[in-house]
Amino acid sequence: MRAPSGETSPVLVEVVRGDMVESFHRGAVAVVDAVGKIERRLGDVDRLVYARSALKPIQALPLIETGAADGFGLGHEELALACASHSGEPMHVEKVAAWLAKVGLGEADLECGAHAPRDAAANGALLRAGRAPSQLHNNCSGKHAGFLTTARWLREPTRGYIEPDHPVQQRVAAAIGGMAGLDLSRAPRGRDGCGIPVIALPLRALAAAMARLADPSRLGEDRRAAAKRLLDAMAAAPLLVDGTGGMTATVMTVAGTSVRLKPGAEGVFCAALPTHGLGIAVKIDDGGARAASLAMAAALDRLGCFSPEQRSPLAPFLAPPLKTVAGKEAGRLQPTAALRSL
Amino acid sequence: MRAPSGETSPVLVEVVRGDMVESFHRGAVAVVDAVGKIERRLGDVDRLVYARSALKPIQALPLIETGAADGFGLGHEELALACASHSGEPMHVEKVAAWLAKVGLGEADLECGAHAPRDAAANGALLRAGRAPSQLHNNCSGKHAGFLTTARWLREPTRGYIEPDHPVQQRVAAAIGGMAGLDLSRAPRGRDGCGIPVIALPLRALAAAMARLADPSRLGEDRRAAAKRLLDAMAAAPLLVDGTGGMTATVMTVAGTSVRLKPGAEGVFCAALPTHGLGIAVKIDDGGARAASLAMAAALDRLGCFSPEQRSPLAPFLAPPLKTVAGKEAGRLQPTAALRSL
Repeated sequence: MRAPSGETSPVLVEVVRGDMVESFHRGAVAVVDAVGKIERRLGDVDRLVYARSALKPIQALPLIETGAADGFGLGHEELALACASHSGEPMHVEKVAAWLAKVGLGEADLECGAHAPRDAAANGALLRAGRAPSQLHNNCSGKHAGFLTTARWLREPTRGYIEPDHPVQQRVAAAIGGMAGLDLSRAPRGRDGCGIPVIALPLRALAAAMARLADPSRLGEDRRAAAKRLLDAMAAAPLLVDGTGGMTATVMTVAGTSVRLKPGAEGVFCAALPTHGLGIAVKIDDGGARAASLAMAAALDRLGCFSPEQRSPLAPFLAPPLKTVAGKEAGRLQPTAALRSL
Repeated sequence: MRAPSGETSPVLVEVVRGDMVESFHRGAVAVVDAVGKIERRLGDVDRLVYARSALKPIQALPLIETGAADGFGLGHEELALACASHSGEPMHVEKVAAWLAKVGLGEADLECGAHAPRDAAANGALLRAGRAPSQLHNNCSGKHAGFLTTARWLREPTRGYIEPDHPVQQRVAAAIGGMAGLDLSRAPRGRDGCGIPVIALPLRALAAAMARLADPSRLGEDRRAAAKRLLDAMAAAPLLVDGTGGMTATVMTVAGTSVRLKPGAEGVFCAALPTHGLGIAVKIDDGGARAASLAMAAALDRLGCFSPEQRSPLAPFLAPPLKTVAGKEAGRLQPTAALRSL
């Protein structure tokens, strides 16, 4: 069993209730450029992490590079959904269903499993209608539609497309290794929540991969074009990458094309900053999503990604309040001095 | 702002996915007897914690000690609900509603706020019926019914019973200080999710308070009787203290009268062990409930609370699996060597 790091991570986020810090989250942050140079860091940036869904924009590269996206006439909405951890709202579910129909497949061909929509209103509507969630509601259904699309385009079997030895996952693993600049053949592996392989990367290599999305100038011509198309799609349809009210959608809407965001399960959060030519990767030791979100918001703020006018609509993410069930103020989440001085 | 501890806590729980530890949780555990002697410990047991809902059995002492429970003819079901963080199932909601009616009050007199039932089936049924959750569904509604009952019995105003200066909360604070053996007048304070005060205690004092519930032999006569009645009620109605399938209900059902459990928000978990005459208090640094649950299960196991036959139905709590959405095995949560050697 590989331990992620031997180093004790710094505290990044504190949960304050009344007079006291009630809980706190440790973790690491890497800010890296497209040649792999570390610009800023907190904690052990050589630690191994499973990037989980934060890798989706990279996992979507083969969808374009194989010619499948053009072959099936996909537009920016499908490409945004391929990069999404979506909230299962009707806009997501209907577009993924239409996309699958376009390549001659349907919901039953997905192998991601069914879970309830993250969006409370969408979940309530589903329950009120007496319907069970389908695989289309799975936050990864767009990514899986992309996998199926490349298999259809290349006339590969679609069944078992989530397995490590299927050509779909072989291409995805090659794209990850290429973007991270690493031979991953002996890296720790496992199975993601949606069934596909996860491959461990050093945190700094994950940030470097994001930087190469943001600044693809040193990549080959096809990959450069694919990276640009995916980032353009995320900027054009931020709600399809996330969901109503989510931090990813809100930051990408408010900050415009200077920031692309992608969170992953277990406290991972990544960013590609085209204006800066930088990538950011956050990992919270304990997997806490609330801390990963605040650490990313604080890192973006520290890097000057937000103007004073932009900071105001982002206040719920930069300074998240803690409220009672009845809505009274009870405390707040706050970045530590270490995180604020990143 | 008070920091909970200056010491780095040991890792108690690891989240394993495939070949690697993906995430991990630090925290502290105190096992203490009724005179306050530390029997076993991990991490800083002098650290300050808000016990949150783990204190409910102690917050319910005045309900009996004021004579209110007897005055209104409450039975073990109401007393179990006063100690509960319930899952909002019909059995909980209907019994709290009937109890409030018995003291001449109703749902609108509660000040805990409304939230959706934790139980997925109960939440689904509510949504399918097109109904919004009420304050009765709040996991704390039984505790609040207890507060209102003492106010009614003593002819105090019921409005504002959640405020620190209301006699209800003054009695609760005195009970906490008495059971913890501490003057809490200068302890850090805040507001709980259900609106009532929280008061910080050293982790060892929280465990000692639980030990005094488990072994009340040195308490005054009235308190001794009240502690026994509450523990008897929890043992008689474990499902009312928690909900269907929950760890608290399952462990108390399987292990019988040797264990009483009560979790709290932000990674707190407490136990009173009448057979051992001990109390246990767990706090996870990052507030993670999954780690608090496993740390408590492992501590109970280490203390010999489960027979070999009992360990089998408790396997989902002693060795929680990590599964994909589609149900394939992806990993597990596991106690560290430090926790296993508590």
